[in-house]
Amino acid sequence: MAEEVKLFRTWSSSYALRIVWALKIKGIEYETIFENLPDKSPSLLHYNPVNKQVPVLVHNGKPIVESLVILEYIDETWKQAPLLPEDPYERAMARFWAKFGDDKVLTSIRSVLMKQGKEQEEAMVPAMENLKFLEEELKGKKFFGGEKIGFVDLALGWLGNSISILEEIVGLKIVDEEKFPLLSAWMQDFADASIIKDNWPPRDKMIVKFQALLDAAAIAESATSSSK
Amino acid sequence: MAEEVKLFRTWSSSYALRIVWALKIKGIEYETIFENLPDKSPSLLHYNPVNKQVPVLVHNGKPIVESLVILEYIDETWKQAPLLPEDPYERAMARFWAKFGDDKVLTSIRSVLMKQGKEQEEAMVPAMENLKFLEEELKGKKFFGGEKIGFVDLALGWLGNSISILEEIVGLKIVDEEKFPLLSAWMQDFADASIIKDNWPPRDKMIVKFQALLDAAAIAESATSSSK
Repeated sequence: MAEEVKLFRTWSSSYALRIVWALKIKGIEYETIFENLPDKSPSLLHYNPVNKQVPVLVHNGKPIVESLVILEYIDETWKQAPLLPEDPYERAMARFWAKFGDDKVLTSIRSVLMKQGKEQEEAMVPAMENLKFLEEELKGKKFFGGEKIGFVDLALGWLGNSISILEEIVGLKIVDEEKFPLLSAWMQDFADASIIKDNWPPRDKMIVKFQALLDAAAIAESATSSSK
Repeated sequence: MAEEVKLFRTWSSSYALRIVWALKIKGIEYETIFENLPDKSPSLLHYNPVNKQVPVLVHNGKPIVESLVILEYIDETWKQAPLLPEDPYERAMARFWAKFGDDKVLTSIRSVLMKQGKEQEEAMVPAMENLKFLEEELKGKKFFGGEKIGFVDLALGWLGNSISILEEIVGLKIVDEEKFPLLSAWMQDFADASIIKDNWPPRDKMIVKFQALLDAAAIAESATSSSK
């Protein structure tokens, strides 16, 4: 049977980008279906009735959802160019840092961006702590995966361009080169890597999107404050 | 080298119970260190400086944290009595449902318990939807793992006794036998399984703990309301 691989994504989802990169690293051909989230296709709802979100990978008719779960599936299905290390302990560490990126780094940076003034300063404390852990993890390595881009690099990939766009909009330095020299170098190396760089969404469109999200958050915040 | 396996846990953590059960299923001997979270041991902080939480599994001096990551580590390290299926697609499904349990089922039920009146009724809607997905997933199976207890059963294990304790305290039926016959049967079968039942924390102590948590939540909620 000829393999049929389809990826449901949006133009900007960083969760979906993980899958785009992984399939490129593995050299897998696939069909892309671009979704518009306010008007989801019946196919997306059929394949992902639980979360109704992208990315969804459909392999020979069977859907897989949740980007980190999809990455593991890709790694177990196509063995070339492994994303996870072989050793069980190192695999556990990779899974841990990927989860840490989603649960802690992403949420703490979002919190900084959604706040202002003194509240923003307070939100910076845990965000800096979390970035410091990533900085430590990069000691002696070019990528989180070592010499090559791996599972954790793809999971943290959003840091590679979102941070610099957000810093530009908000006028606030989050990943400071002096405080985080290794992480800053990683962001550059990852963003520029040949297997990665062709799939970044257009920067001008990302600026418009992030600006809209921050504006919406500010409106919601001021509505909450005025009702107190 | 003789294997050295240590588990840092608390008497009540359902995340830690996943590991207790997995090690029992695998037949692994280990040392237990009971932690008191308000006064964490230096060893716990040494082994888990990032999250500072239980469970932590220490295998030959190397710490692994995050309960689902630990389950995967255990399954890859000790191959007997596999927790995850062999097929990559079924493995992906197991990982998906385990994550769904933590991200959606747990949070939506918590939301029901933390609210009252009309807000509680509204919170019931997503909680029921999530439980319905679990009900569907059990069709034709005794356990989520099929005939045997597997990865998803351990991940959802907390449902096996916490729900009935919480229902008793709050006086509210969440997993109704008529609405969720398969899930209700699973809760009973899982809770009573020979490999599971000896490790439930004492029910009377759990009642005291949950009651205290719900009281604290109610106080926090009323403080928020009065400042509005």
